[in-house]
Amino acid sequence: MDTNQWFVETYNGSALMIRVKNTLFDHRGIQHIQIFETESFGKMLVLDGKVQLTERDETFYHEMLVHVPLFTIDNPEKILVIGGGDGGTVREILKHNPSEVLMIEIDRDVVDACRKYIGVDRGSLDDERVTVLFEDGIEFVRNSNERFDAVIVDGTDPNPVSKSLIEEEFYKSCSRITKKIFSTQSQSPFAQGDYLREMLSNIKDAFPHVSIYINFVPTYPSGLWSYIIASNSDIKVDMDVLVKRWEERQINTVHYNPEIHYASFMLPQWLKESVKEILH
Amino acid sequence: MDTNQWFVETYNGSALMIRVKNTLFDHRGIQHIQIFETESFGKMLVLDGKVQLTERDETFYHEMLVHVPLFTIDNPEKILVIGGGDGGTVREILKHNPSEVLMIEIDRDVVDACRKYIGVDRGSLDDERVTVLFEDGIEFVRNSNERFDAVIVDGTDPNPVSKSLIEEEFYKSCSRITKKIFSTQSQSPFAQGDYLREMLSNIKDAFPHVSIYINFVPTYPSGLWSYIIASNSDIKVDMDVLVKRWEERQINTVHYNPEIHYASFMLPQWLKESVKEILH
Repeated sequence: MDTNQWFVETYNGSALMIRVKNTLFDHRGIQHIQIFETESFGKMLVLDGKVQLTERDETFYHEMLVHVPLFTIDNPEKILVIGGGDGGTVREILKHNPSEVLMIEIDRDVVDACRKYIGVDRGSLDDERVTVLFEDGIEFVRNSNERFDAVIVDGTDPNPVSKSLIEEEFYKSCSRITKKIFSTQSQSPFAQGDYLREMLSNIKDAFPHVSIYINFVPTYPSGLWSYIIASNSDIKVDMDVLVKRWEERQINTVHYNPEIHYASFMLPQWLKESVKEILH
Repeated sequence: MDTNQWFVETYNGSALMIRVKNTLFDHRGIQHIQIFETESFGKMLVLDGKVQLTERDETFYHEMLVHVPLFTIDNPEKILVIGGGDGGTVREILKHNPSEVLMIEIDRDVVDACRKYIGVDRGSLDDERVTVLFEDGIEFVRNSNERFDAVIVDGTDPNPVSKSLIEEEFYKSCSRITKKIFSTQSQSPFAQGDYLREMLSNIKDAFPHVSIYINFVPTYPSGLWSYIIASNSDIKVDMDVLVKRWEERQINTVHYNPEIHYASFMLPQWLKESVKEILH
């Protein structure tokens, strides 16, 4: 792609265009990886034609994916990340001062390209508490006998690489190795509602306690994004507990705060209706 | 525009594209009015190149613009709407069973075209409690000696027609004729933050009590939209009062519910920071 071209991601009769100044990286391996310098969103990572992050709004996504589950629990010590190749998820996890973070990413090229051209991880993948293994996350959880305080799935859209990440068998394995909390991104409820409902239904079969929360991420389809949080014990958390943990942990954020955490579980009427049969 | 073309609205190095099946109306008068049949968003109204509504998500906008202020107050009897030519705002207001609704719209062509080609008002502009005057809203509020329980501004992006709708003098006139509550749409905090701050600052000079609330509208720039609510008395409302009014008024909605009302006042950290000097 030449200078001053538009990157276009289409979905469902609509499309998001982002003006691109130049291409920093373009490589076809396990996935088609592209990294662009954009006009007003900073650097942008695209996998198989889909925006994974831009520097301008990646914090909106990563902070909500990580801080909502980790502020829901006491003492997040040992954390597992499935996916998360750009390193933004591990970067946010380290703010909670865990003792151990294990990241399982299938595509080494994504990690290498992001570290070289974007640096979203801000060095966190070099942290001594962090281990990165380049292998299949589904195989890993199937065979693992370890247990983790939190298991966080930071996967891409369903495609040949990530498809099994939304199947029931995967979530049952996750449930077995989750000590306190599980969370995953679950696509746009507005643009990809069928996908959200399929994930929700499969997660509901694997965990007794399940909730959806939502947040605004402008460069993802429709701008509304969803996440599913689940646990083998109750996941409700009071606002005063959130505020107490927020003050204790002294975390700097761009987007997340306890109010947004609380608000993100309040769903519009159409979304409540579309998931109520699955959740009840 | 021919069949299977894309409508494109650009903002700030990005753009939203919506696939269009055909053009139902195209007319240049006070504003350039276009009405399209789209592939997956139903009919769409565009003014001066900017999406004003699509059938698929107009409820997200109209319900939040109207129900947040009207559920904040007791007995909304007499309501003033400035703008709102498509009729969606009046349609939502009538659900609160007011005694009188006055709508002041400068561009008669918008009202006529929307009634003929979209029908978003669902007949509400013919309701006997509703009066529509085709005149300048700024002149109207400047000269009015009436007082209204609620004043709701449903204006377009700032342009030669609507520019004065964001000036301090207009808000001071609104304050004088507002008995209980004032609200206005205030553009995207993500894509048009300067505009939001200018409005907020001018409204703060006209009303002692001012708050921002936000909501998701996928076909507006960035997908995140803001509204400003203001009053000469306190505007805080408890969740139990909202739920009580919600049950009493028996209103059917697509998007709004008391939880979303409450959640819409919770702002992400970057937005809180960007307005805190104006609000405090």
